[in-house]
Amino acid sequence: MKNQTYRMTMLFDFYGELLTPRQKEFFDLYYNEDLSLAEIAENNGITRQGVRDVIVRAEAAMQEVEDKTGIIRRFEAQRPHLDAIESAAAEIATTNDRRYSDPRIEELTSRIRGELTALKD
Amino acid sequence: MKNQTYRMTMLFDFYGELLTPRQKEFFDLYYNEDLSLAEIAENNGITRQGVRDVIVRAEAAMQEVEDKTGIIRRFEAQRPHLDAIESAAAEIATTNDRRYSDPRIEELTSRIRGELTALKD
Repeated sequence: MKNQTYRMTMLFDFYGELLTPRQKEFFDLYYNEDLSLAEIAENNGITRQGVRDVIVRAEAAMQEVEDKTGIIRRFEAQRPHLDAIESAAAEIATTNDRRYSDPRIEELTSRIRGELTALKD
Repeated sequence: MKNQTYRMTMLFDFYGELLTPRQKEFFDLYYNEDLSLAEIAENNGITRQGVRDVIVRAEAAMQEVEDKTGIIRRFEAQRPHLDAIESAAAEIATTNDRRYSDPRIEELTSRIRGELTALKD
């Protein structure tokens, strides 16, 4: 199941709070804390298959919300625009460095990059 | 109910697809198409209060998802960062205009602004 960790992490980041406490706990232990199904099973006194079922249902619930709303897709669609802004700001900074050495332009391009970092968090 | 149209529009934009078809239809007619409760009631052969109940439940369902996930809050938290980038790009463009008239910097600041427009859509 762990070959889709990035997708699972995104689902959990956006929709984790919609899960039941138990779904949330097992999902987090498995995908974020990297415990095995067997370890979670043992710690909770249930079967490995029981743990798996809880996690699979959690995933299905979150994926259903995403399939309906497309919210993660929407966030991810921002990425190329942010990258284009970053690359334009970098080129302005380089041009300014080479030709004009204007300290205000240097400050402004560096501010743009700082804001982009905040946006990508 | 219509004094919170902005909030309702945001909720519907993000979470409208999580509603039942009937909730979605009435909510849309009321908030986006600006029909009155009485008009929707008449068109659907139910009471005005019945329409109101459907819409209130739709709002509560969407607000509950937002209260848990904070996704709209997260989108809105991007706004000041985008505004700061826009203002920095505008100042670079003005500085370039006044002092350097570098056509490439002009192009790059205008690209940044175009990308911001796409992000704010």
